[in-house]
Order: sequence, then C-alpha cells, then structure tokens
Amino acid sequence: MDKVKYAKVNLDIVNKLKKIVGDEGVITDSFDMEPYSHDETPGLKSFPEVVVKPKTKDEVAKLLSLSNQEGIPLTPRGGGTGVAGGAVPIFGGIVLSMERMNKILEIDISNSMTVVQPGVINGNLQRELKNYELFYPVNPASLDSCTIGGNVANSSSGSNAVKYGGTKNYVCGLETVLPSGEVIRAGGKLVKNATDYRMVQLLLGSEGTLGVITEVTLQVIPLPPVKVDLIVPLSEITPIAEIVKEVMGKKIIPTSIEYMDSETVRITKNYLKDSPFLPESSHYLLIEVDGSRKEEVDKDYQTIGEICLNRGAEDVLVVEDSGAQGKLWKFRQSIRDALVSFSPTMIEGDIVVPRGKITFFLQQVRDVLKKYSLSAGIFGHLGDGNVHINILKGKTEDEKWKVITSKAVEELFNGAISLGGKISGEHGIGLIKKPYLPLIVSEAELNLMRKIKRVFDPKNVLNPGKIFD
Amino acid sequence: MDKVKYAKVNLDIVNKLKKIVGDEGVITDSFDMEPYSHDETPGLKSFPEVVVKPKTKDEVAKLLSLSNQEGIPLTPRGGGTGVAGGAVPIFGGIVLSMERMNKILEIDISNSMTVVQPGVINGNLQRELKNYELFYPVNPASLDSCTIGGNVANSSSGSNAVKYGGTKNYVCGLETVLPSGEVIRAGGKLVKNATDYRMVQLLLGSEGTLGVITEVTLQVIPLPPVKVDLIVPLSEITPIAEIVKEVMGKKIIPTSIEYMDSETVRITKNYLKDSPFLPESSHYLLIEVDGSRKEEVDKDYQTIGEICLNRGAEDVLVVEDSGAQGKLWKFRQSIRDALVSFSPTMIEGDIVVPRGKITFFLQQVRDVLKKYSLSAGIFGHLGDGNVHINILKGKTEDEKWKVITSKAVEELFNGAISLGGKISGEHGIGLIKKPYLPLIVSEAELNLMRKIKRVFDPKNVLNPGKIFD
Repeated sequence: MDKVKYAKVNLDIVNKLKKIVGDEGVITDSFDMEPYSHDETPGLKSFPEVVVKPKTKDEVAKLLSLSNQEGIPLTPRGGGTGVAGGAVPIFGGIVLSMERMNKILEIDISNSMTVVQPGVINGNLQRELKNYELFYPVNPASLDSCTIGGNVANSSSGSNAVKYGGTKNYVCGLETVLPSGEVIRAGGKLVKNATDYRMVQLLLGSEGTLGVITEVTLQVIPLPPVKVDLIVPLSEITPIAEIVKEVMGKKIIPTSIEYMDSETVRITKNYLKDSPFLPESSHYLLIEVDGSRKEEVDKDYQTIGEICLNRGAEDVLVVEDSGAQGKLWKFRQSIRDALVSFSPTMIEGDIVVPRGKITFFLQQVRDVLKKYSLSAGIFGHLGDGNVHINILKGKTEDEKWKVITSKAVEELFNGAISLGGKISGEHGIGLIKKPYLPLIVSEAELNLMRKIKRVFDPKNVLNPGKIFD
Repeated sequence: MDKVKYAKVNLDIVNKLKKIVGDEGVITDSFDMEPYSHDETPGLKSFPEVVVKPKTKDEVAKLLSLSNQEGIPLTPRGGGTGVAGGAVPIFGGIVLSMERMNKILEIDISNSMTVVQPGVINGNLQRELKNYELFYPVNPASLDSCTIGGNVANSSSGSNAVKYGGTKNYVCGLETVLPSGEVIRAGGKLVKNATDYRMVQLLLGSEGTLGVITEVTLQVIPLPPVKVDLIVPLSEITPIAEIVKEVMGKKIIPTSIEYMDSETVRITKNYLKDSPFLPESSHYLLIEVDGSRKEEVDKDYQTIGEICLNRGAEDVLVVEDSGAQGKLWKFRQSIRDALVSFSPTMIEGDIVVPRGKITFFLQQVRDVLKKYSLSAGIFGHLGDGNVHINILKGKTEDEKWKVITSKAVEELFNGAISLGGKISGEHGIGLIKKPYLPLIVSEAELNLMRKIKRVFDPKNVLNPGKIFD
C-alpha cells in the first residue's frame, strides 16, 4: 500500500471541484468530513481530503475525468452502511457521495419497473412502491439508511432472499460512469436481454471499483398483501436443519428464515426500549410467509408451525398484526446496532455455506468460539445458509484479542470453505476481507479480476485498495 | 476477418488431440464433421478442421492449452441449437463438442441444487428432476436438444421467464477452463455469494468467448404440481396490451404469456401431423398459470379468462389435461422447425422491448413487413416483451431478398431501440447480429468488452469472430 503514489487535493483541485458541483457540493472542513471517513466497519477510519456531492450524471463524469487526469483517488459512497470498509477512502483523495442523487425518477407500472438515482434510500423506495401495491423485495437490515446504488455496487441481499433472491435478481439496467468519464448505459426496462447485459452483471457487486453507477432500473413485483411471521424458540440447534428441510420438502418457500442466538436476543432486548415478546430460549427462528391469499398463507404457516413443534421447538408464536410485525422486524434490524453498542469493537463474519449445512456449520462456529473463549452474537439469514457471526471484544485485552481473533476468523473461514461455502454472502470483500480472499479465490481468478480492473481503471484511481491489491 | 492468421490443424496436432481425448473422441472425416459445421442459423455453414469430444475437465484444459499454444481457433459447442451462429467455426480450427460431458452429477435435495456437466440436455435434466418433484424452470423451445452449458453460455430463457426468470436466475456456480488451460471454480451451492460470483456473472452469456464451462451448479425449485393452459384467440392485436396489463394489475403473474400470429399457426399446423385444436383466428395468446394448489390456480385462470373475454377475445379454451397440455407445448416448440421447413431461408429476429410496449412494437413490425412486402411468422414470449420475428423468404428473388431484408431488419432494430428495446432478448449476438451491435452498444462499452476478451483470451483463439471483432 505504501508504494502507491497519488496526487494530493490542493486548492486548485478544490476550486475545480467547486466549479463542477457548486460550492455547496464540496466539503473540506474536517469536522464535516468526519462522517465520510468511515462506514459502519468497527475501528476503521480514514479521512478523505475532500468530499463532493454531485447532482447529475454529467457532474459525475466530470469528477471522474478530473480524478483520472490528476491521479487522485476517488471513493464512491452510498449510504455508508457497509461493514467491509468498501466506502472508506484509505488513500484520502475524493469521496464521491451520491446523497444528492436521491430521486425516484419513475415508477412504471405497465412494465413493472422503477428507475431511480443511486442515492435513493432503499426503505424510501419500498414505501413509495407500496402506494402502488408494488414490491422491491431486497431488504438489507440497514434498509432505512442504505442506498440502492450501494446495494447494487455490493450486490446486497436481505432477509427476503429465501423466496425472492437478492439485488442481482432485480437489476435490469444500469447507467454507469467509467473512470475515463465515458458513460455507458446497459440493459433497460427489460426482463430479458442477451445484447449488452454482461456489463450490468459485471458491475453488480464490483464495490465501486469499476465505475460509478448513476441510474438504476429495477424490476418490481406485486406486493403480496398477506404475511404472517412465526417466532420459534428452540432449546437445541440440531432440529433446525430438519425443520428447514421438511418445510422446503413440503414445497413451501418461506419469505424469510432468520436465526438469532440467545446472546443476540439478550443484547438487543437490553438495547431497545420496546422489544417484541420473545420467550427465554437458546435459539430462535423467525420465519415469514407471504402470499396473495390469506387461506394459502394460513395453510403454509400452520404446516410450518406443526413441523417446528414436531421437531422439538419449544413454542410457535404467530404474529399476524402488522404493528406487531413491524416491531418484530425492527428488532431484527436493530441487532447490529445493539451489538456495536454493547461492544464497539467487534469482528463481523458474513459467511455463507450451502443451506443444508448451516446447522452443522453453526455448531462448528460455536466450537471455534469456545476454543478461543470468545463470545459472539450469531444471527442472520439461515434460510440462505448465510449467518452473521459478530465476535464481541467486550473486556478482552487488546493484544490477546488481536491474536485469538485472527486465528479464530481463519478457522471459521476455512471451516466454511471446507463445507463448500464462501467468506462473504452479502457484505462483500471491501478492505476487511481482502487478506482472506486468496483462501477461496484462486490466483488465476484473482489475476483475471486484477486485469479486468485495469481495463476499466488503468490508473487505479477508483476506490483503490479494495477487494484485491 | 481476412487479416487474422491462425495456425492450421495438421497431422501432428490431430495426433496430439487423440492423445488427449482418445481416438474415439476425434473426428476428422468431413462427412462426420458436417453436423458440426453449422448450428440452426439458416444459411450459415463453416467446416472445422477437426472435432474433439472431451470427457473431463482435465481434457478440456489440455485442449485449450494446446489451441492457445499453437494459435489454433477453438469453438466450443453445446447442442448446436443456437440461431445466431455462435457455435459455427468460422475460422475452421477445432470444434470442442461437449456432448460426452453429459452427466447429471448430483441432485442435492437438501440444498435445492443440481450439479451437471455442460453437455446435459435441458429436457433430460427436467425429466430427471421431476422424479424428485423438483423444477428447473428455464425451458427454451429447443429444450430437448439444447444443453445446459449452451444455455449458460447464451444466458438462455424460455416461455416460463414471465414468472420464473431465465438462466441467470438459477446459475449459482461454474467451473470454467480458461484459454490458458487454468481452471476457475466460482460460486457453488450458494444462493447468496458476494465473494467470487462476479466471475459467474461475467461468464453467463459470454457465448464461449471467454472460457469453456465444464460444470454448472443450478438452483432448483419445488415443481408446481398444478398447471392450466389457456388458448386465447383474438381478431385484433390491440387488446393484448390491455389484457396483460390488467392481469398483472390483479397481481397474477402467469408462468407464460406466449403469442402466435395466424401465419405461424397455419404453417405449424401444416407441418405437424397431430396438432392441438386451435380455432381459426388472427392472433393467439397461450397463457399458462401454475401453482401449488388447485383452488388458487383455478381462481387465477378464471380471472385471466374473464379479463380476456371482457377485452374482446373471441374465446378462451381451457387446457387442464396433461396430455393435451403436452400436445399444446409440443406445438409451440415445433414452430421454428415448421417455419424452417416452410422456408429454409429465413431471417430470425429475437427483439426485446419493454413489456408494456410489445403490442405497439408488434404493430410497427407489421407495418415494416407490409412496406417491404415481406411475410413472416411472428411468435414468442410476449409476456417478456420478447418476440421472434421470422421473416420468410418463400419465393422472393435472391437479390431482392437481400436488399429488402437488410433494410427491414435495420428498421425493426431501430424501431425496437427507440422504444427502449434491444436487438437480442435471448438468442445472443453470435455472428449474425454482430454487425448490428453498434446500433445499441456504445463504442465505450464495445471497447470494454474487447479488452475484457483480451484479458481472458489474449491470442483470440476461443470462439473468435463472435459478438464483436
């Protein structure tokens, strides 16, 4: 990293930036730049030299041209909710915040499409679509602060992915500015496209290293009017695998199958003033079923409930009231904040394994944590084989913490890999997982990725230092 | 094209090939090579110098290494059902046929995944999955001869895409051999993956220009036990837009919404010995609804039927018997063969426009055809905005045919583009649509594609001359 030499942002550059985006679109005050010096990755901070907030694609194009010509690193930023350091400007330079490009440009009912600027907050889009009885199913837990542009750059998912998939299933078109300042428009309001969609696919999940997304066309679907949530407390973890298998075997695909361990629930209960009722237990499943007809949803959740009870669940609580459902999901979405509040230093894992191996993996995780006397909040998208293991520092000494977590993380990653899993299910690689990428991605593939990066960004000015060196 | 200089396949090379795949895996006899000299693109033929049929990934790796070292072009081939010339070896060299890598390696019920070799016929996989009540919804009309590897390379779709999407929605893992002979394994039995899936995405639809796929991991879903087909004859085309809009507005997403014009139906009826009953009419919709419960499917199809009749359909025929349904879809799948049999020379369009503009576009198509006195069979996936316009030469003189079709095709493409459409919805660019790609893909994007190609295949030996020069 210390070999890279980038140009610095001087007064002349700042004036050029102001000329492009206007005075009010440029921040140089270090107090005001603080929020742009980190995302939500604990302990990771690096100040930009300047923050710019463009309002149009043309401004973005001019900014990228300038950064490219001058050799100044530029880090695009959505909502800053990432937890892998993807938006942290580790080489300083320019942070390009998309916060002012936050308009829903179109809700096209006849094509079941919406066209948005990248800075639109996911939750705002959800609420707006609801007015048209439409649904964009991708719901990261940070949905009230993460942006659609960030979701695309990260190829994010959420709890609805069991039934509805992730961002990749909905992105149909992208307008993107390349480091050269050229603009490409790939895809469109098209559910099928064998003409130019390769570019859409490649940009998805590229974590702002290949181009800056300036417009997104998303497919939307009818909003399912009925949904029911089940809270399933269990004293043991082992029956979970059988429950999921039997539910799927009955041809029921729940919207969500979330998991929380007792530590996660305890910490989140203490954090929130107003928690939903969750009985004392060791493990919890939170299962949601949705559909267009009440009879059908009722049948599904009753079947699921019976399976859970037959397989040893302690109880099945049915949550049908939308207020109570809101409270329950608010709880789920607050977990991360609660854990951070409990232990500002923590290490987040976002491991994914084949769904059928998730409970086996969870036991592995518990063994590793026990071996190193580490405590953790474990929760996440069990139905996708994707769990979040947040190892909590608590009062562990700094030096010991460093040593044991680095060993533990590598053991967890290797355990997942041996089960056919990967080191990131949805949070991306960013900066934090970069050292571990060679565990799972071969040198041949890494070389391809590096060369593709060079094709898009020969001067390595766009979000440098992320994913790989 | 004539500037490219490739090495020739001499006896020494043939012996090396035989050493890799065995004598029985090499074809040099020109009679036996004839089937490998074309795909299903009318009028396009180019002989390879040799055909090789590997059985393992390691053989593929050795073959690619050899081709790369010697500078011999190598064209990968699945079922040869493409209609854009993607599998035609226009520079001779080696055709790499995946026909012997045709094993279903695993049906993993607990993970809802199947792992297959690329040469597995789509329809064979469908039938095998049925034994487990599982479903791989991607069903190109050529499903009984196209391969999964070809489907992935082309990112194919089919009539079920309205509800279930296309290949891109189901591919979770790919093993791929690069031109260097290196093997990369990206993805896995994972529905979520933010680690290395970029490579999966990039290879999807790359038409064999970046690597040779040697193993595919596909997500599968529960087989919906109930389905009903509706045949909807209409005297006018205009009500179709309103029908589709109203059906979708009722939150019903049919499995398929197919369209056939009277010419298509007439020609296919004459071609098949045993056709399903289709009343005389000008336009036909074929709408399928499926689901897990009969009541629900019944309600949906009744609602659709009422909408059709209220909007001026001449009739709604309900096909519930599985034998009759098979016959109906056999008819749909036979359309292309029927048209080719009727007019061996034809030009196939595979245009896609935003769904809400499809009937407007169809009228545009009819105007263009009328202007040039051309006849065509028009059919396809109306519910995806993706129609196939097969312009039939019939008795048109050769010279006139050339002139008017080139004008007409460009007008059709430009018409689609002006509506926000693309020149290929699912057949890919291959050789046939290559000249038209600059109509829709900018120079900046084409440059990126060329450079990405060079990253994977610096000597341009892998399926050269396809998509772009």
